[in-house]
Parts: sequence; C-alpha cells; structure tokens
Amino acid sequence: MDVPKYKTALIVGAGEGLSASLARLFAREGIRVALAARGIEKLGALCSETGAKAFACNATDADEVERLFGLVEREIGTPDLVVYNASGRARGAFVELVPSDVAQAIAVSAFGGFLVAQQAVKRMLPSKRGAILFTGASASVKGYAQSAPFAMGKFALRGLAQSMARELSPQGIHVAHFVIDGGIRSAARTETPDRPDSMLDPDAIAASYWSVLQQPRSAWTWELELRPWVEKF
Amino acid sequence: MDVPKYKTALIVGAGEGLSASLARLFAREGIRVALAARGIEKLGALCSETGAKAFACNATDADEVERLFGLVEREIGTPDLVVYNASGRARGAFVELVPSDVAQAIAVSAFGGFLVAQQAVKRMLPSKRGAILFTGASASVKGYAQSAPFAMGKFALRGLAQSMARELSPQGIHVAHFVIDGGIRSAARTETPDRPDSMLDPDAIAASYWSVLQQPRSAWTWELELRPWVEKF
Amino acid sequence: MDVPKYKTALIVGAGEGLSASLARLFAREGIRVALAARGIEKLGALCSETGAKAFACNATDADEVERLFGLVEREIGTPDLVVYNASGRARGAFVELVPSDVAQAIAVSAFGGFLVAQQAVKRMLPSKRGAILFTGASASVKGYAQSAPFAMGKFALRGLAQSMARELSPQGIHVAHFVIDGGIRSAARTETPDRPDSMLDPDAIAASYWSVLQQPRSAWTWELELRPWVEKF
Amino acid sequence: MDVPKYKTALIVGAGEGLSASLARLFAREGIRVALAARGIEKLGALCSETGAKAFACNATDADEVERLFGLVEREIGTPDLVVYNASGRARGAFVELVPSDVAQAIAVSAFGGFLVAQQAVKRMLPSKRGAILFTGASASVKGYAQSAPFAMGKFALRGLAQSMARELSPQGIHVAHFVIDGGIRSAARTETPDRPDSMLDPDAIAASYWSVLQQPRSAWTWELELRPWVEKF
Repeated sequence: MDVPKYKTALIVGAGEGLSASLARLFAREGIRVALAARGIEKLGALCSETGAKAFACNATDADEVERLFGLVEREIGTPDLVVYNASGRARGAFVELVPSDVAQAIAVSAFGGFLVAQQAVKRMLPSKRGAILFTGASASVKGYAQSAPFAMGKFALRGLAQSMARELSPQGIHVAHFVIDGGIRSAARTETPDRPDSMLDPDAIAASYWSVLQQPRSAWTWELELRPWVEKF
Repeated sequence: MDVPKYKTALIVGAGEGLSASLARLFAREGIRVALAARGIEKLGALCSETGAKAFACNATDADEVERLFGLVEREIGTPDLVVYNASGRARGAFVELVPSDVAQAIAVSAFGGFLVAQQAVKRMLPSKRGAILFTGASASVKGYAQSAPFAMGKFALRGLAQSMARELSPQGIHVAHFVIDGGIRSAARTETPDRPDSMLDPDAIAASYWSVLQQPRSAWTWELELRPWVEKF
Repeated sequence: MDVPKYKTALIVGAGEGLSASLARLFAREGIRVALAARGIEKLGALCSETGAKAFACNATDADEVERLFGLVEREIGTPDLVVYNASGRARGAFVELVPSDVAQAIAVSAFGGFLVAQQAVKRMLPSKRGAILFTGASASVKGYAQSAPFAMGKFALRGLAQSMARELSPQGIHVAHFVIDGGIRSAARTETPDRPDSMLDPDAIAASYWSVLQQPRSAWTWELELRPWVEKF
Repeated sequence: MDVPKYKTALIVGAGEGLSASLARLFAREGIRVALAARGIEKLGALCSETGAKAFACNATDADEVERLFGLVEREIGTPDLVVYNASGRARGAFVELVPSDVAQAIAVSAFGGFLVAQQAVKRMLPSKRGAILFTGASASVKGYAQSAPFAMGKFALRGLAQSMARELSPQGIHVAHFVIDGGIRSAARTETPDRPDSMLDPDAIAASYWSVLQQPRSAWTWELELRPWVEKF
C-alpha cells in the first residue's frame, strides 16, 4: 500500500483556525509550509512557531496568484500539496444584498479557488502527482435563506472540485472537497460547557484532511463531510 | 385549487430555442412578453410573431439590469414572471482555461442570474406573488471533466435558486430550477433519424415550465429534471 | 409534440387522499381506473363517483400481485398507467423498533413497489409504451431520527425507480418518482387558518402527476419534488 | 483532541477482502475481533492469523442476530465497534428478476443491517459510546439499469445509516456509511498491469475506515466515498 508523500504545502486563505492547525500538522510531518493571505501581519506568530513562510496575495487576482506560485517555488519549493481555504460571504435579506458584495463573495469563495488550483495543477501535471484540497461548508450542499452569496460561492467551488476530480484524478492528482458542517472552534468563539464538542475542533478537521492525504490512489476520497456529533443536519 | 395567473413575463438570455418556445407559449396564454439579450437584432422575427418586445441588456452589469427592469415596467408592465436562461461556458483542458473566460462564464451563468432575480424580487415582494425560473443543465448537478467553468456557473446558479426558494417561497414567490439534461433540438442541430426524440424539444421543455407555473402554492416544485427518454444518466 | 395518451390506469395503495384525487382526474380524462388496496370496503364511494373498479390485493405478495394484474386485464383492460402509492412505516426510538414491523414497512413501501412495477412492465414492454409513477416522501431523500423503517422503505423505492428509469426509459416506459415533502391535506387532517395552504392539496399533487404524464418522450422528468410554499426544507 | 478507543469489534458479513483487511487492522490495533458469516469454514485461516473468533449467523434472522450478540459478549466481550459488510444482489433484465431473489437481496443488504445495528445500539447506549460502520457501494447513491435489487438494498441501507446518524450521534454513537465506488481487488480478481491501482486495495479501504474511527466527536464524518483514481464517476 503506497502512501503518498508530500514535501511542500501551500495554504491559501490562511489565518487562525483551520489553516493554523493544518500548518502545524504539516510542519510536524516534515512538510515545508507556505501561507498565503491578503494581509499577512496576523501570521507572524504562526510562522515563528512552525517555520512557515507567509506571502501576501489577493487570491482573486490572476496575476497575483501566478506571482505567488513563483515566489513560493523560489523560496521553499514547488507545492505538491495545496489547500484552498478562503471564502467570502454576504448575508442579509435577498433584496438588500449589494451586488458588488455578491460578486466579491463569489470571487473569493470560488474564482480564487480556480486561480490557485490552476497554478497548482500546472506544476503538478509534469510529475503526475500532488493533492489539492478545498474547504467547503454546509452551504456547499444546501442553499440557506438570507445567504445566497455564500451558497453561490460554495456551490461553485464544489462544482470546480468535482470537475477537477473527474479530469485530474486519472492524471495522478488527488482532488478532495470537505464539507465542514458546523462552527469551527476558535479563540474568539467557543462552545458553552453544557454542549461539549458542539463546535469543530480545527485540529480534528486537520487530522481528517491528513487522513485523506494518506490515501493510496486505489482508494481516494473525493468528498467527505465533517460535523460535530450534536449538530443538526 | 387556486392556480396562479401571470400577466407580464421577462425572459433574460433570450435567443432561439427554449426562450422562443417560452415566448410563444406565454403569448398564447395571454401574457405580455419582454425579451432581453445582449444583442437583440436576432429577436426581430420572434417579436413580430408573438408581439413581444425586445430589450438590449448585458445581464452581468448591475446598472444595465436595473435599467432593463425600469424600461420593461414602463413599456409593458412590471414582470410577475421572470425566466433566467443565460449561460456562459468555457471548455478545454483545465490548465489551458483562460482566467478571464472563467470569470465571464461564472458572471453570465450565475451572477447575472442574481442581478435579474434581485430586481424581480424587489418588484414582486410588495404583492407577495410572482415566479422566477432558472434554467440549469446537467452541469448544475455534475461537474464534468474539461468543463469546470460551466460547472462553477451552473452549480452557483443552483445554490442561488435553492437559497431563494428557502427565503422567498414563504413570501409568496415561486422559485424553480430546471435541470435540462441533454441537448436541445434547434434549427442548427437536430438528432439523427435513427435516434428519434433523443434531443429535447424546446416546446416540450416550455410545457413543463408552464406546468410548474400552474402549480397552486400548496404543492410547489423547487426542482425538476428533464431529459430525453434515451439519454444516459 | 407528441403527447402520450393513456387508457387504463391502476392505482395501488388506494385510499383517501392522493389516490382519490388521481382516480378522479384520470376518470375525467377518460381513462378507465382500477383501484387496489388491501381492504376495499372504504373504496365504495370513490368507485361510485368515478366508475373505478376496486380490487383487493396485498401488494407485498407476489402471487396476489400477479393475480391482480390478471383480473384488471380481464375486467377493464391492460394498465398502461400504474401508480404505486402504498407505504408502510414504524416510528419510535431506534432500540424499540420491532423487527417484524421494520420488515413489514420495507415490504409495503418498496418490495410491493417492485412486484407491481414488474407486472406492469411485463405488460408494457411489448408495445414499448406506458408509465409507472412512484409516490415518495421527504424520507425518500432524508433519513430522519426515530424513523429508520420509513427511510429504509422510501430510499429503497427511490433506488428502484431510478434503476428502472435507467433501464426502461429507453424502452419507451416513463418512470417517475415524486418526492412529496409535507403533509397531505385530508378530511381528517387539515391546516390551521393562520397557515393557509401549508399542507399539500391532493388535487394539486394529482395535477403535477398529470403534467408529468403529458410530457413527450423528448423531455421526460424522472424526479420532481412537491412541497407547500411555507414548508421548511 | 480526544481520540476514541475501541476494544471489541464485530464484523458481520465477513469473508475475504475488506472484512479480512479490517480484521487484521483491528487486531494489530489491539482490538478483539469477532467475525460473523452464514458459513464460517472459510474463515479458519483468518482466525488463526488474527486471533479472531468466527460465529455462524444468518444476519437476516432476528433471533439469530440476537443470539450472535449474546455469544460474542460471552466469548470476547460486548462489541463497541460493529461493521456491517453483508450484501445481496440479483442482476438481470427487470422483467426477469425473480421476486424471491429480490426479497432476499433486500433482506441481506438492508434488513440484516438493521437487525445487527439494533442489537449493537442496545449495548452501546448505556455507555453512550461506540461505532457502527456500514459498507455501501456505487449502488447506494445511483440505481443502475439491470440492477434494481442491489440498488433497493443499498439505498435502504443508506437510509438506515442516515436515520441512525441523526438519532444516535447526539447519544455518542458514531454511525458512518462508506460508498465504495469500484471493484475491490481480491485473490480471485485483480486489475490488469496496464491499469495499476484501478481496483480498490482492501487494505486501503480498511485504513480509511480506521481514520473515521479515530475522529474525535467534534468532527465526525457520516459519509465518505472511496474510488480508484482512474474510476469513472
């Protein structure tokens, strides 16, 4: 059973929470880590802790994304493991949504995912190996009231991931989409003591991402749902 | 059993095929019809035949869409029945897709749908009645290889429609999404004689749209698939 | 546009509600109607009103179902339109479910559907035409807590319908599955005045069944959801 | 991050392939293993190798299943980890399927799953912990032509698993359903050299089951698909 090995990871849409858990886990596994975010000031502590490098990038801009991959390649190596975590949303009554906010939400959640994935695939195809993981949400499979922009972006990202899986799995690239169905625990937001583990522990999510990355190609997962034991669905 | 009555229809993304069948059917049912498309020269014959009025509009531009609704209101009345038919696609190997084409495909298939739906809902909410129909495709529920941009746009449109249905159905607006799974017969493209009815007759699709529009609110359909009898799925 | 014509309908699992609405509608359309149910005493008034004939049949028994089709053929003709409406359920905490009740629920909801459909298809295949409609529920696509037996039966019925659609549509038999998502209004159970049309009118459901039956084969629906405008989903 | 620990596993529907891989993996992890199958002669070598105990049981018979759990409890302990692997199928043209074969296929794939799960849950609820895993197939989510009985059984099993997940997850029992989409490699049936890893390695499947079992309750997976990298879907 031939388990994949990854050397260089790029996490786009990095911040607190899931991205930090992934960075720590990848670093522990001996993987070099690049973190990309629009603003990177907040990433200083995580970089110190994990040895990761931070790169500023607006993931919705094709030129910036191409430049990001060039920089990452030069500084830490060509990524063979890419995670797209960024998402945008705009909430409110349907008639009060602002069109430019809606466009922006779709751009961040989905179009940025395309830009990042395409740069990644260009670099993975020559060696016919690599992995690209997309972080989805409840809204990836269910369009909620008062939340059309988030549903549009997350549905679109899922369509991207599924189309990529059909095209690129047979070329050796593992594409996976995670439906995170619940709130992620963070320093700022945690569950009440009477509802233990009712929010997703980001380390637990990261562990499941890792288990998908360890799958031999004879048994790949394309999509996997994660939710707290007490979450309604 | 109280069957809805519609007076004024607006079809966006109008051209040959399904839009023309819908325009004819609506006109036969005594509904005034407005047709909107980027270029309206091609709509002349259809307007003559059905009494419809044509309006030029780029559906991906918020200002143009708002202006479109203003014009339609002034010239034929406030639409209580809106159909969004426009879609954009870009095909090819994933690494060869051009980012601006991808952005454009998403804008036409999904963002334009949002812009049109929002203007429509603003005008329907005061009377708590109206219908908004979205035309989807196989790609709305299945992301095919070599076709990520179409999947992204059509998945996003479905997320929009589902979110709207959850929010707006209880406010009296019937939102429905049609998964057209197969090729639509046209003057330019028709099936071979040995495979009769292997392409969707646009008049047949229009008839199913109409049956959904006739549903009393106690039994509304949110989504419906249509495919030729011999289509693989 | 060649709209199908049906002459002889058989509704299995007939009682009050949807079956009665279908019987009335079919009769109005000039179709001869057979009603089958385990007990037929309750069907007297409906038979008088519509001219339908009632047949006693336990749909979970292969021999009885075969005999039923023989009787119907002899008395009113070979059914070219068959509706399977029967369903069984057992509710309660998972650990308290009684195994024989679970077996019975699956038998009524799903196995009976197979038996009826197979007899129907045997008679439709020679002429390569006919329609078989299955009545599903919310539980067809969502397994609720405290309701495993109903989910098992209704999921199974949907699997049957989908497999049949793939195999038999290209042979001219229209197979359709309806997801009835909400409570059906009846003499015994109706909505409160402050929630008008919050239960499905069985006549409205029947009208949607009829519209699917009217579809030309170039644009067939395999599955369609129906729910009240105010129903949560 | 509190990772669950399991002590006693029961695998029902045990034979070659996936069950053997699971038995070996569980044994390596220090878990006592019971294997149940209709005939247990074939399990001798696996028992010798892993220290597992084999029990003869017809999983479609409520009394036998209850007796099985009693025996397993007495001989190796109360199972806190139960896997249901049995499945039945009948293939062929729809009109040629034999009703008793169809009933048997549903009984083995789905009703047996209910019987086993219910006995398991009765024993897990007092301590509010345990895991129940169901092995599904492509047919769990897609009803193929010429294969209605398999679809009926596997759809029903999925309905069972989903209903159980909604009811029992909040009571501490992890219920998961695996969609195995492709052929499983075995001594008797292996891929051709020009299509490496085009069949699922049962050890790889077992590893993914294990990773789900290792999930802390704040981030449980209910469903996960596994398919070979080159499998069409």
